[in-house]
Amino acid sequence: MSFKLTILGCHSATPRTLAHTSSQYVEMNNERFLIDCGEGTQRQLRKYKVTFSKIKYVFISHLHGDHFFGLIGLISTFSLLNRKTELHIYGPKGIKEIILLQLKLSKSWVDYPLYFNELDSKESELILDNAKIEVHTIPLKHRVYTNGFLFKEKVKSRKLNMSAVKLHPEIDICDYQNLKDGKDFKNEDGSLIDNKLLTHDPPAPISYAYCSDTAFTESIIPLVKDVDLLYHESTFLDKHEELATKTKHSTAYQAATIALKASVKKLILGHYSSRYDSLELFKEEAEQLFRPVILAQAGKEIKVSNQN
Amino acid sequence: MSFKLTILGCHSATPRTLAHTSSQYVEMNNERFLIDCGEGTQRQLRKYKVTFSKIKYVFISHLHGDHFFGLIGLISTFSLLNRKTELHIYGPKGIKEIILLQLKLSKSWVDYPLYFNELDSKESELILDNAKIEVHTIPLKHRVYTNGFLFKEKVKSRKLNMSAVKLHPEIDICDYQNLKDGKDFKNEDGSLIDNKLLTHDPPAPISYAYCSDTAFTESIIPLVKDVDLLYHESTFLDKHEELATKTKHSTAYQAATIALKASVKKLILGHYSSRYDSLELFKEEAEQLFRPVILAQAGKEIKVSNQN
Repeated sequence: MSFKLTILGCHSATPRTLAHTSSQYVEMNNERFLIDCGEGTQRQLRKYKVTFSKIKYVFISHLHGDHFFGLIGLISTFSLLNRKTELHIYGPKGIKEIILLQLKLSKSWVDYPLYFNELDSKESELILDNAKIEVHTIPLKHRVYTNGFLFKEKVKSRKLNMSAVKLHPEIDICDYQNLKDGKDFKNEDGSLIDNKLLTHDPPAPISYAYCSDTAFTESIIPLVKDVDLLYHESTFLDKHEELATKTKHSTAYQAATIALKASVKKLILGHYSSRYDSLELFKEEAEQLFRPVILAQAGKEIKVSNQN
Repeated sequence: MSFKLTILGCHSATPRTLAHTSSQYVEMNNERFLIDCGEGTQRQLRKYKVTFSKIKYVFISHLHGDHFFGLIGLISTFSLLNRKTELHIYGPKGIKEIILLQLKLSKSWVDYPLYFNELDSKESELILDNAKIEVHTIPLKHRVYTNGFLFKEKVKSRKLNMSAVKLHPEIDICDYQNLKDGKDFKNEDGSLIDNKLLTHDPPAPISYAYCSDTAFTESIIPLVKDVDLLYHESTFLDKHEELATKTKHSTAYQAATIALKASVKKLILGHYSSRYDSLELFKEEAEQLFRPVILAQAGKEIKVSNQN
């Protein structure tokens, strides 16, 4: 099982000379996708040498500009690069109209299959379920309709314990798939050999939850329970909690509260307001409650590898 | 009279690590405006220390992404920066719908007066006429409806020749405005003193023509006749003239042909295709026919100052 997250941008509001708005590129179990797509994301993809063409899915949390103004440019660039493979966009209702209107008025129809999956449910939904991953929405509380996303690898087959298997010459190569699927081995006399004696557990599937933008809400805790990595926005520090409440954002301390209560393995902070001089302040505040804390920064790669 | 042009981006198609798509910032006779606004323009404005808030007009030539995908971000950023002064957008019909749809779906109405002036005429029009400048469209030939823009300073008042004026004690300070307006001085006995004996010509008004994107078309020559500066796109070199014709773009040689036939004072080239290794090739090609040629490059400032 493998997971690599590349932060392309992690600041709130507007792009600045050294601040890129939200976007993340993820490789998970050989699927490649983008989460949010602020203005300039395609430039960041080039900067960090991401192979554009392999991105198959784009998940847009909400329609504030710092999370999606780069999407139309990316879709157009895919077309200019002669993309032929399909692209699936997941985002709030309305996103299809915005994109198609711009393609229509610029007479720039794309030549590749472009699918929109518009979201409007207030409940968590399973929105993608293929052989490699599944993706659920995490309803968030913001000024406009917003979803976080929970990405989970599919559980792989059990691994054969070959030294154990070879002690039983009655087990034929044709039986291996059943063993990998978790079935016990049935001898000719009807007696069983427990599957666990013949196989190892598969690597634990990796899970990643992305939560931006949102006010502090404990409703997300059961949805992100025990994940390997939680990205939770921390636009403000605790001293500006009132402002966070007013603008429906979170503080670093609140993000850490969610991480703690959901027993996640690691917390990533991001979506920083530009009012602070140092990002370390966010980390110090969250670490009062939870560890480990990782600061999202453009270009940072975060890897998870579960091996058994 | 004063004119300063700052190139923010001058490459075609898609933004790349070292290539920014079309946008120019202009200060002309104390008016500040933007011409075209590709993705990432607001970052370029910050990079080159342009005071955002003073931009009053934005002129969009056409709705291809490399000329306007940065507009919605700029409009939103103005709002986040608490802009209160009015902003006037000039661009092809449809631009208002694109912008307003995005503001509506993101619930991000702007707090400042935002005016749209949608263009759909195929003839040259006077679209802005104030005390300082006038702006005319230059209909271009491209794959979608496209205008270039001709910017002209207003002619200023004549300048008093004070040493000459003082030779005539009968001329009162109350008469100065009439002299500045070009009127002759009338003595009590009805005789006239020729205005030209009492005043100097005002500085010559500066004119700038922006022509991107367009196939080679001589129809623009009378519209850009004698301008101080002509920006004419040169997406291709002459060896790719066939491709230029097919995509309705121009070569550097064709841009120089327009400059020569219109007797402009200087030619600026830009909107380069990424297929060429060196921009100098564009300059060399255009200089076979016309001089001086300036290569647009991000960050380059081009000034014109007419003094009498």
